[in-house]
Amino acid sequence: MGEKESKKWVLMATARSPTNIAVIKYWGKRDETLILPVNDSISVTLDPSHLSATTTVAVSPSFDRDRMWLNGKEILLSGGRYQSCLREIRRRAEDVKDEERGICIKREDWEGLHVHIASFNNFPTAAGLASSAAGFACLVFALAKLMNVKEETTELSSVARQGSGSACRSLYGGFVKWAMGNKEDGSDSIAVQLANETHWEDLVILIAVVSSRQKETSSTTGMRESVETSSLLQYRSQVVVPRRLIQMEEAIKKRDFPSFAKLTCADSNQFHAVCLDTSPPIFYMNDTSHRHVQLCFLVHRTSYTYDAGPNAVLIAPNRKVAHLLLQRMLFYFPPPSEKELDSYVLGDTSILQEAGLHSRKDIEALLPPAEVKTNAPPQKYTGDINYFICTRLGGGPVLLSGDDQALLNAETGLPK
Amino acid sequence: MGEKESKKWVLMATARSPTNIAVIKYWGKRDETLILPVNDSISVTLDPSHLSATTTVAVSPSFDRDRMWLNGKEILLSGGRYQSCLREIRRRAEDVKDEERGICIKREDWEGLHVHIASFNNFPTAAGLASSAAGFACLVFALAKLMNVKEETTELSSVARQGSGSACRSLYGGFVKWAMGNKEDGSDSIAVQLANETHWEDLVILIAVVSSRQKETSSTTGMRESVETSSLLQYRSQVVVPRRLIQMEEAIKKRDFPSFAKLTCADSNQFHAVCLDTSPPIFYMNDTSHRHVQLCFLVHRTSYTYDAGPNAVLIAPNRKVAHLLLQRMLFYFPPPSEKELDSYVLGDTSILQEAGLHSRKDIEALLPPAEVKTNAPPQKYTGDINYFICTRLGGGPVLLSGDDQALLNAETGLPK
Repeated sequence: MGEKESKKWVLMATARSPTNIAVIKYWGKRDETLILPVNDSISVTLDPSHLSATTTVAVSPSFDRDRMWLNGKEILLSGGRYQSCLREIRRRAEDVKDEERGICIKREDWEGLHVHIASFNNFPTAAGLASSAAGFACLVFALAKLMNVKEETTELSSVARQGSGSACRSLYGGFVKWAMGNKEDGSDSIAVQLANETHWEDLVILIAVVSSRQKETSSTTGMRESVETSSLLQYRSQVVVPRRLIQMEEAIKKRDFPSFAKLTCADSNQFHAVCLDTSPPIFYMNDTSHRHVQLCFLVHRTSYTYDAGPNAVLIAPNRKVAHLLLQRMLFYFPPPSEKELDSYVLGDTSILQEAGLHSRKDIEALLPPAEVKTNAPPQKYTGDINYFICTRLGGGPVLLSGDDQALLNAETGLPK
Repeated sequence: MGEKESKKWVLMATARSPTNIAVIKYWGKRDETLILPVNDSISVTLDPSHLSATTTVAVSPSFDRDRMWLNGKEILLSGGRYQSCLREIRRRAEDVKDEERGICIKREDWEGLHVHIASFNNFPTAAGLASSAAGFACLVFALAKLMNVKEETTELSSVARQGSGSACRSLYGGFVKWAMGNKEDGSDSIAVQLANETHWEDLVILIAVVSSRQKETSSTTGMRESVETSSLLQYRSQVVVPRRLIQMEEAIKKRDFPSFAKLTCADSNQFHAVCLDTSPPIFYMNDTSHRHVQLCFLVHRTSYTYDAGPNAVLIAPNRKVAHLLLQRMLFYFPPPSEKELDSYVLGDTSILQEAGLHSRKDIEALLPPAEVKTNAPPQKYTGDINYFICTRLGGGPVLLSGDDQALLNAETGLPK
């Protein structure tokens, strides 16, 4: 084969990675470049069929530079975070040989080969649902498969961490701990799985995506400002979180929902308290978020947690409680008139069916909950929620085989 | 004179007391009955011509029980807080003699004499503007005058404290510190004046009374829950506040506005952070409050502080900055169509005049501030504010002479 001919091959790998939501929060870095946190954190991985990133990475001698497309739009790869991930994975790359296709890449060749990356989220990127966690986890996982990286998932987590801190927790399903580590080079700041997604299958997760008009502080900026100005952050990270971490691991191990819920809510509250203790104060929760919290306290044994935005992630101990929760949420936050129920409640809609909610009419017919005073029409907040997602715990990243699942064309290496 | 005749006299005293706003916050009691706080606090006293309580207390042998009227409505005096104040003042009462009117009360007689109390706030009680601080300070001050109590104001502050904690700070004008004290009986938990109201006359205070539909947690309940559940409160009271107190006293002494503003904002933020760290979390600030904070950071050198509610208390270093602040506030929060300017901006409206705002038209003509993007119509929040009050620092309680200023009839001892 001539050189021109041999240049034609494109080698690809496609993966899907879940997003995750922290129940013991990560807020504050001790090293901004390596992304090393000021405390350990614990998350639950969400079912990737409802919330995930899919990423195809490709390599070819015909590529003249590294390129990336996010949700169909080309973006610049010059950012330090992408560069860190690419560098760290290339450093760990091994030989790849495909005699049939005439592909033979030596580990030392990777340095000179360019990659194409295409990534797609099955949920809105701007919705504040940790799209960067799923995205970087997926990128690192796919690149590691493509480049035949032999290292353990835990090792990969320290690479994903350099893309987006919480991405390291998206490399496992179920319950995941990100240990802050102590080393200066960050090599021990890694994610470990506490229990897989089958450990506690009863849990039901309901996400309320809030219609927010306000631009939020990015979590990178917010964290930096909290570290610099909050007098409570250090106390939280050094005294409160270590104590809570032990209790949370125990609660997860024993499937002790009351303890799990109490810790989850308390830690979400405290993270937002630290944001408020920052100068200028950071307000991620808005009036709608406040209302959700108040409703959670009315629905027996429901846990809530909020990330860097107004969206609520509600965790119910079982489907029965989830039905009550969903009914109450839809009573107060009914779909706006132009929206059908199937574009207002997404994900595992079997919960909706089980709760007897088959149409808009069923929602309109919901009786006022006990807290509504009978002598006044209940206050409703139509339009304050964009949509709900019903979901559950899910597994870690998986490799998707077959070119039809790839986001890049197998011949050209360009987006399909 | 026969007994019937002698029973006719009514002895009265009328006083007016200011409200106050803390710049280093009081949040959390170490003793609920004596109202002893977990940390020192510092407040500014507001001009009583705009915000104050007026109270008339009367005593007569013809009264058959203690009675009280608040803003014209009779209320029960059985509450422990009123009883504490009455008991403590009666304990300190001295002889009173008025030969002309045939009044002769020995100190031991007070125990057997009943009082009538009428109190009136010149601002809405429900507006969350520390009406209880002004009210209890006024009650204690007026009773002390009536009963010829000889003790110092500082001593009286420990009585007012037992009515409502922050009331002790309303016994002085200007800048006031409430020292938490260490004694079990609370006798050293008293207010002292740091500087009087003439010390820093440039300061301008703008209060934004927010239209709130939500019922708020009472501060008594909120404090108790924070003490019981917030892991940050203790650290705040033991570590952060003592440090800030020293800095705040220094800033006030030197009239150092940047330091004063920084500490005031940070301590307001932290108080609300502790509320959020409480379980269930307490949300006093709402979306409107958040918007005010963001505006304060845009208006050079404006300080804000929030008590247990969504109302903003904004402190400008001088009238020039106050004009800019008022213009910006009225740009984003214009009066609703049914309101005239003079019922929307209350208090010292000369600031309004100086800012060139004579009518609704002047507000409509305000140019968009620099932060407004020129390509989009600016977001306005008409209706989110009930009204503004322009005010300044003010003096402590004063005795009002003359029966025409009294709220009780001099003959009957009943409300006029």
